[in-house]
Amino acid sequence: MSENMELERLQKYIKIKKLATKLSPSGREAALITSEANLRYFLDFNNSEGALFICREKAFFLVDPRYGEAAQRSVTNTEILVYTNYYESLAQLVEHYDIRNLIIESSKMTVHTMRQLEKHIFDAGCKVMGNERLDKLISTQRIIKTKSEIEKIRTAQKIAEESFLELLNDVKPGVTEAQLAFDLEYIMRKKGASGVSFDLITIAGKNTSMPHGVPGDYAIQNGDFVTFDIGAIYDSYHSDMTRTIAVGNISDKQREIYEIVLKAQQTAMAKVRAGIKAYEVDRTARSVIGRAGYSEYFSHSTGHGVGLDIHEEPFISTRSETLLSEGMVITIEPGIYIPGEFGVRIEDMAVVTKNGCESLATITKELIEL
Amino acid sequence: MSENMELERLQKYIKIKKLATKLSPSGREAALITSEANLRYFLDFNNSEGALFICREKAFFLVDPRYGEAAQRSVTNTEILVYTNYYESLAQLVEHYDIRNLIIESSKMTVHTMRQLEKHIFDAGCKVMGNERLDKLISTQRIIKTKSEIEKIRTAQKIAEESFLELLNDVKPGVTEAQLAFDLEYIMRKKGASGVSFDLITIAGKNTSMPHGVPGDYAIQNGDFVTFDIGAIYDSYHSDMTRTIAVGNISDKQREIYEIVLKAQQTAMAKVRAGIKAYEVDRTARSVIGRAGYSEYFSHSTGHGVGLDIHEEPFISTRSETLLSEGMVITIEPGIYIPGEFGVRIEDMAVVTKNGCESLATITKELIEL
Repeated sequence: MSENMELERLQKYIKIKKLATKLSPSGREAALITSEANLRYFLDFNNSEGALFICREKAFFLVDPRYGEAAQRSVTNTEILVYTNYYESLAQLVEHYDIRNLIIESSKMTVHTMRQLEKHIFDAGCKVMGNERLDKLISTQRIIKTKSEIEKIRTAQKIAEESFLELLNDVKPGVTEAQLAFDLEYIMRKKGASGVSFDLITIAGKNTSMPHGVPGDYAIQNGDFVTFDIGAIYDSYHSDMTRTIAVGNISDKQREIYEIVLKAQQTAMAKVRAGIKAYEVDRTARSVIGRAGYSEYFSHSTGHGVGLDIHEEPFISTRSETLLSEGMVITIEPGIYIPGEFGVRIEDMAVVTKNGCESLATITKELIEL
Repeated sequence: MSENMELERLQKYIKIKKLATKLSPSGREAALITSEANLRYFLDFNNSEGALFICREKAFFLVDPRYGEAAQRSVTNTEILVYTNYYESLAQLVEHYDIRNLIIESSKMTVHTMRQLEKHIFDAGCKVMGNERLDKLISTQRIIKTKSEIEKIRTAQKIAEESFLELLNDVKPGVTEAQLAFDLEYIMRKKGASGVSFDLITIAGKNTSMPHGVPGDYAIQNGDFVTFDIGAIYDSYHSDMTRTIAVGNISDKQREIYEIVLKAQQTAMAKVRAGIKAYEVDRTARSVIGRAGYSEYFSHSTGHGVGLDIHEEPFISTRSETLLSEGMVITIEPGIYIPGEFGVRIEDMAVVTKNGCESLATITKELIEL
């Protein structure tokens, strides 16, 4: 086994241990994790089937017989419990470890599933706690990325960038937005992405004034901005990047707006470092755009965390008090959107470091003109 | 407007009206629908944002300002309420229509969202009912497809079939399972699928003994069975089909098993008609396989409904008492899986009719040999 694999294995142990120590011993608390992203976070197992039961004493991965063999092969940081009846096995664990409060992922579990759970563990004297406690405990852990997590995000970003560069050869008047999205996803998958982080945004002309425009039948024309907001998934981790490029002759106003957004993006990135609050980064971007007179056209937040989810903590918004810390991975993506005319957004992902941040994007942010 | 469009529009009205009349007037009941598939069922709006509020008197589609214009353009069967604050608008509706019980999709809504809802409508004297009532009301409606829904499923199936036939040219020794899955998805999208109904299953050799095997690096060899379980999405509707084909020289045992599964599939399809119970169809397939001595190797249900979800009511299983009715769309997909050797599954979708069923697949079920 390589040193890296050994390290990764240790980190998986630590992740579970960390959560276990946060559980209340007097409340006889245990956690039940069933959402795909969180299962992936705690276990080396790429399958949304199964449930991770964590109490202070021990952790169990409950798995359907169909996946038992696969789980035995890849999961090393918990006991594996291949069940015949999921709820019965769970009730036995609850009873054995004298659990009184089972905390669940309230932002992931459906009401129906919670009701089922309640029914089956009630007799064991245990309550299901449908509050936000577990969601918060886990997001507090996930917000700081390990080195190996950062490497996966970096690889996802590399795939997205290389695909984008390859696609640029085909960006010209007459090509439709939908065609670009289709081709880009194909290239990404060919380069090893397991999927896209979200429906790729490849929009042009007036459509760029919609921050979340959907690629359609519009064909690129001379003088258009084309906005690419793109992300790839690699080994369950996401990437996120936006570039706005020019096709043919653009106006002075387009150039002016581009430069303002670029300055806002760069100034905000320069602000990022461990120890400052998320809203300060948002405010920095917002004030550059505001001073240029376009504040009303910057209608969204400055950024968000990226990891096993494409949008996760920390959120870089006007009100977010989250203290940035080393190892967080965030996006910085200001934009200006002028209705009926055009829009510009520029976005990089960056790892927060002690004294600043390291960008995960390597593609120029200067205006690309085709 | 064409006659078809007019008809479809009327059907959308009827869908909402039907649900409204099921709501208890004495209980002052209203329904809140927020899941993507159910929103799509009731509204001509391809966006998972928004919430559909239905009470006996009226229906409202609550939508975020970003999608207000798009909703105004396409939604014609409800009032549209573009909100500034979602929960405030909802609380006002609850108050205005004197709603005491708000029923939700308990199998879709998260515990967290329900808690938020409760908090905001409590002051209006309204309770959130997190039971299965709404899920059941909706699935009872969705289980019978309209003509236009069936046409969409038929189109999805047509895309899948044509893609499969095109792919067959590339199926030969040396090609990997993963490559087939990748190419097939690409062809489907090129032919107009908005996506795939599930991760396509294209598995070969010994891997075919796993009903839900995942395409990997295994390269097809002479003498292999290759199983394709594939589905396309067209205008939000799914398709589902399985074919097992032979590459090169296969054994007598392979041939024997193929014929048993084929007979089971055909016999079960011949059993389908309005008025019989779902388990009778399952039993028919199972008894053909059982009589041949392979019952232990048919480890799953015989089929399921297909529509806006790839798996939905009615389920064709050993215990399903659901009465089949005209307009249901179901799959019939028996299989035999011999561990360490190979597996065979053959699956068609069919529309239940008064005296039988109409298959939605047009590709032969006789063994294709390449």
